[in-house]
Amino acid sequence: MTPTPLMLRRAIVIAIALGIWFSPVPAGLTAPAWHLFAVFAAAIGSVLIGAFSLLMAAMIAAGTIVLTGTLTPVQAFSGFANSSVLLVVVAFIVAQAVVKSGLGQRISLFMVSRFGGSSLGLAYSIVVTDAAMGPAFPSNTARGGVLFPIVLSVARGAGSHPEDEVGRRLGGYLMFCAMAGLAVSSALWMTATSANPVGIQIVQKFGLDIGFGSWILASCVPALIAIGMIPLLVAKIFPPGVTATPEAPAAARQELATMGSMTRDELITAATFVVMVTGWVFADALQLNVTSIAFVGFGVLLVTGVLKVEDIDIRGETLSTFLWLAVLFAMSGQLNELGFISYVGERLASYLGGLSWPVTYVTLIVLYVAIHYLFVSQSSQVLALLGVFLDVGVRGGVPLPLMAYGLLFASSYFSVITPQGGSQNIIFVASGYLTQRELYKLGLLVTLAFLAIFLVIGTPWVMFVTSG
Amino acid sequence: MTPTPLMLRRAIVIAIALGIWFSPVPAGLTAPAWHLFAVFAAAIGSVLIGAFSLLMAAMIAAGTIVLTGTLTPVQAFSGFANSSVLLVVVAFIVAQAVVKSGLGQRISLFMVSRFGGSSLGLAYSIVVTDAAMGPAFPSNTARGGVLFPIVLSVARGAGSHPEDEVGRRLGGYLMFCAMAGLAVSSALWMTATSANPVGIQIVQKFGLDIGFGSWILASCVPALIAIGMIPLLVAKIFPPGVTATPEAPAAARQELATMGSMTRDELITAATFVVMVTGWVFADALQLNVTSIAFVGFGVLLVTGVLKVEDIDIRGETLSTFLWLAVLFAMSGQLNELGFISYVGERLASYLGGLSWPVTYVTLIVLYVAIHYLFVSQSSQVLALLGVFLDVGVRGGVPLPLMAYGLLFASSYFSVITPQGGSQNIIFVASGYLTQRELYKLGLLVTLAFLAIFLVIGTPWVMFVTSG
Repeated sequence: MTPTPLMLRRAIVIAIALGIWFSPVPAGLTAPAWHLFAVFAAAIGSVLIGAFSLLMAAMIAAGTIVLTGTLTPVQAFSGFANSSVLLVVVAFIVAQAVVKSGLGQRISLFMVSRFGGSSLGLAYSIVVTDAAMGPAFPSNTARGGVLFPIVLSVARGAGSHPEDEVGRRLGGYLMFCAMAGLAVSSALWMTATSANPVGIQIVQKFGLDIGFGSWILASCVPALIAIGMIPLLVAKIFPPGVTATPEAPAAARQELATMGSMTRDELITAATFVVMVTGWVFADALQLNVTSIAFVGFGVLLVTGVLKVEDIDIRGETLSTFLWLAVLFAMSGQLNELGFISYVGERLASYLGGLSWPVTYVTLIVLYVAIHYLFVSQSSQVLALLGVFLDVGVRGGVPLPLMAYGLLFASSYFSVITPQGGSQNIIFVASGYLTQRELYKLGLLVTLAFLAIFLVIGTPWVMFVTSG
Repeated sequence: MTPTPLMLRRAIVIAIALGIWFSPVPAGLTAPAWHLFAVFAAAIGSVLIGAFSLLMAAMIAAGTIVLTGTLTPVQAFSGFANSSVLLVVVAFIVAQAVVKSGLGQRISLFMVSRFGGSSLGLAYSIVVTDAAMGPAFPSNTARGGVLFPIVLSVARGAGSHPEDEVGRRLGGYLMFCAMAGLAVSSALWMTATSANPVGIQIVQKFGLDIGFGSWILASCVPALIAIGMIPLLVAKIFPPGVTATPEAPAAARQELATMGSMTRDELITAATFVVMVTGWVFADALQLNVTSIAFVGFGVLLVTGVLKVEDIDIRGETLSTFLWLAVLFAMSGQLNELGFISYVGERLASYLGGLSWPVTYVTLIVLYVAIHYLFVSQSSQVLALLGVFLDVGVRGGVPLPLMAYGLLFASSYFSVITPQGGSQNIIFVASGYLTQRELYKLGLLVTLAFLAIFLVIGTPWVMFVTSG
């Protein structure tokens, strides 16, 4: 059997792991920290070069670090009991009630019926719908799953099909607006993507507590400006061809009429989410655990029959996500506990030493966004790098809240930079309305625009709201 | 809307929860212990009377105990990171490789080809196959999933069909032997059912560490005798009608020939399981964490392509199991931590006070088995009652290892007492070869036989191997 490229890639990853493991432990680090880094680097590296899937890498890593005595089982498995990881899991499950009950479709149709008279209006209705759903939808992938059928049916209704070179442009325009909208709406709300609670946990270790309220205060100005800019900017760099779509609002109104009044399941879902979002909003003030609120909401949706056990049974990928996320989360946390993150931070900081803090801040944010070309998911970069970048920034004199929010927001808006930069992109990309080349070009330009807005407008705003 | 029976049952459960919660806290207990008991009793009670499913009850309970401040999130969610709970989850996933690769079918066919010349021989080949697979198959449900198609095809091959009043008896005989075999094979091996590691964790809190080796030493004599007795006893109380099945070995040999030599996937699965079981056997001696061994095995099966992510995605019920098991596990553990279990144990012990320890021991084991009429799963009774019964026994002077093993083994063999006493029964029951009445009658008689064997032979044996 000749080595296939896959086997070669796997050999490279294993060589990297063994190479780091058996290198002398650098002065200032303990052996467990160094060995954990070897396994973690190999796990992330294997995903980047396509040697192993995230799940394979995570399972082997979890086993290896315990069996070699690098971490105790309690340390290695701690991620499974982490509130944020559990929130992701429950959120994935609960979001299905919105899809299944038809509530998501109704909300989207309502938006289109009001604002869908032009391609620009349609695009706005999509990004606004997404942003409005954000706080109740801690999975942007699930939110994409609600938006996509609407975007697709609106595009088709306007006569836009992927195989038609000219006609496909309207569909492509709307698809990309939805992807870009999902990227920024995830930065707008703390509970709009699974990566946010994960990032907050990392930031908390640096001594900054971020809640639902403080997040929205810091994010609202740059994120709303960015969302407002998306339909205009994308229309500029990828003209949709059609501008007026007068039939869309009528079609939506007709479909709404067909749906009739809200069903029992929709009402229950709406009520449950209103209570849950209210709970999340006041969680800090009332000292309520956000994950427990989600557990109760899930229980209520089960008891009322809106969700059934079978709905979870067919969503087994949530389990895969849970398994790799919990393992990476624990490893990332332990790298920090064992002093590795601050060790790397010190080294990087010495390279950036002598720079003024604003230059350090901008350099770090730009670098952090650019590196996302290498990552296939938002959470994995947050787990791997947010802590290091935050540490370097703080050592370089950047105010902690500014550096933290800058990196947290970037962790969302950078997801549109490549087609695979966020799992929520996949469904829109697969529609075939845009070529890979267009996706990369639009991704770069729109990400640069986001970067500019968050640096130029976001920076003074965050400094203003977090001062004193 | 008039109250339906379901609504009435739900009202009863909620009334029980509120009634206990707002009753005065008994002297000697703290308020959190009492409130946790209120939630736990309502959760288990709701499952027993069919008010809420286990998942609903667990989710609402998890949310309630945290939001009311009864437990901290760290305490309430600790079950998710527990090694034993994670072993159950990974085991469920990994067991699929045996089914998918065809290895399970091959093993069963081999057994039938050797021993399947009579109905008694067929029954022995089934229970021995099951017992042989036990150590590598920590889910008896999954083991049942491998056995069932074989049992069914053997029965059909011999002309036995459910709708044929006389002919169905051979099938019914084999089905019940498989169920009874699964009950005892789970008592034979520490890693043969998910309830065992759960029980071991509870026992550990009393100061007794049980590993793979010490378990098999204590279980082998009574469990092997019980397994050897099953085909004979069931034939006595439910005569299969047909006794000679000379065509079965030939059919199995032919099917084996059709399968050809072992495929790559079968070889990999076999090798992985041999290494995993070896690791589990020597885990105590080499201080290896059994869950980590399973993680690595899972990773290897993924990397070699024997299991794919899609295989997990379609097994979403594992996630439901994980969710309720982790929550109940944490609640049960916390009831113990908060002193509730020992509080109840003291009270029960005072009722049994004055009895000699052998009488206490027998009374407790018989009571523990009889109570299983009320429970729909093995794990839930282990979680709810094993700790209390163990505490009462030890207070009553029963040697700790004897009481512990007695309850642990009972937690497996009692599963055949009702059709729903263990989830592995369901698939056999659904085949329609046996009536509900027959299932209850056979269940009672076979359970009584198991009880007699484990009390009369198991007791002196366990005392012998655990003394000194």
